[in-house]
Amino acid sequence: ELVEALLGDAAGPGPGVLSGRTVLITSGPTREALDPVRYLTNHSSGKMGHALAAAARDAGARVLLISGPTELPAPHGVETVAVESARDMHRAVMDRVAGADIFIAAAAVADYRPEQSAGSKIKKTDSETALRLVPNPDILREVAALEQYRPFTVGFAAETDALEAHARGKLARKGLDMIAANWVGADRGFHTDDNALEVYWPGGGHTSLARADKPALARQLINLITERYHHAATRGTEDSRSPSGQ
Amino acid sequence: ELVEALLGDAAGPGPGVLSGRTVLITSGPTREALDPVRYLTNHSSGKMGHALAAAARDAGARVLLISGPTELPAPHGVETVAVESARDMHRAVMDRVAGADIFIAAAAVADYRPEQSAGSKIKKTDSETALRLVPNPDILREVAALEQYRPFTVGFAAETDALEAHARGKLARKGLDMIAANWVGADRGFHTDDNALEVYWPGGGHTSLARADKPALARQLINLITERYHHAATRGTEDSRSPSGQ
Repeated sequence: ELVEALLGDAAGPGPGVLSGRTVLITSGPTREALDPVRYLTNHSSGKMGHALAAAARDAGARVLLISGPTELPAPHGVETVAVESARDMHRAVMDRVAGADIFIAAAAVADYRPEQSAGSKIKKTDSETALRLVPNPDILREVAALEQYRPFTVGFAAETDALEAHARGKLARKGLDMIAANWVGADRGFHTDDNALEVYWPGGGHTSLARADKPALARQLINLITERYHHAATRGTEDSRSPSGQ
Repeated sequence: ELVEALLGDAAGPGPGVLSGRTVLITSGPTREALDPVRYLTNHSSGKMGHALAAAARDAGARVLLISGPTELPAPHGVETVAVESARDMHRAVMDRVAGADIFIAAAAVADYRPEQSAGSKIKKTDSETALRLVPNPDILREVAALEQYRPFTVGFAAETDALEAHARGKLARKGLDMIAANWVGADRGFHTDDNALEVYWPGGGHTSLARADKPALARQLINLITERYHHAATRGTEDSRSPSGQ
């Protein structure tokens, strides 16, 4: 039974479990320009988001992938939109979210951008300086708060400490249906080919996905998302927000 | 004659014109951490620096390449040191510069770094914020100002406007032997496979290297550097600073 369960997980969802569903996924970092040369970004390779897109496609979904700058090829059979900044990604997501049944926010969106982006290269001076930053739109929170056409909404949390507390805090604060959390720093999580995830959902639900390569982990997570998505669609708001239009 | 000159340029320096010489080259961007997740960087692919390393190697030099994070493989036969931040690059260069005959600063070193780098991930707040930045060490200026073991020093300038004025200003201000300038922005210069350079040196010297792929351009620039290096070594300080130890 254990062996079967493990094989089931490793194999991922059966083909067709998401057929007829549209899954909108964000992936990669964003870049926030200071000027035409310099930018603020983060350590996201896009590997997890791209692997989730491939796994959702293999489960039969129509997949829309909104990707920040990565070195990865667009997955076959996935409609991929390339964006640069958090504001680009926000627009790309909001333009497409009404048609999505499931939204997975795997991108590492920059929380802040420089208040002003200079049109020409800023010249160096010797003195200290301060870069004024303003918050970017919170795509995940905005999608989770939609009243009409709200998809089943899955967030990610990359943490350097207090993983469960930070992840459950984000789950509740943003009104998500599920959150997948991982440790980062010291070669964990970014630019690595494998990872481990702690997955939480409202009502105290929790599953650990053991360290695996990102494609295998993505199949397991799509499995879990599919399960919770169908559960939420059946049970309504009893222990989870209901997907709209179901 | 024109044809020969063009062929000569395209073919690059003959083998052995730099044999017995050590060329120290920096390449790529640097990354300046805000915390374990976020960083400040710039649009440098490292293609030009890596192509210069290969061209100098082909001209017979011993080549040391100090490279910021790039997707490029280390060129064969080149001693490559991988670094992350401007301070890492500064240390790596200063540790090795005493043995170098020629220094080519092709890296796009971040001028500033965050004053403090947090050990754990900074939490998002909704308010505006300011990131305090402090200047990084100026590697190029420091190398050009060396009294003992000063190599023939070549800088780069990436400009969005007033190319010659900015490049000549930098050449004079930092006391360089040569500067190679190119336009950036709107798909020019960064992450492209070709480029064009305007090369300036003290005393009003100037050569244009027409648009070509980066390996071809690198061969032409190594040709020009070799010529000016030997000229400076022969003529002393008459129209250029002399390489030390000659």
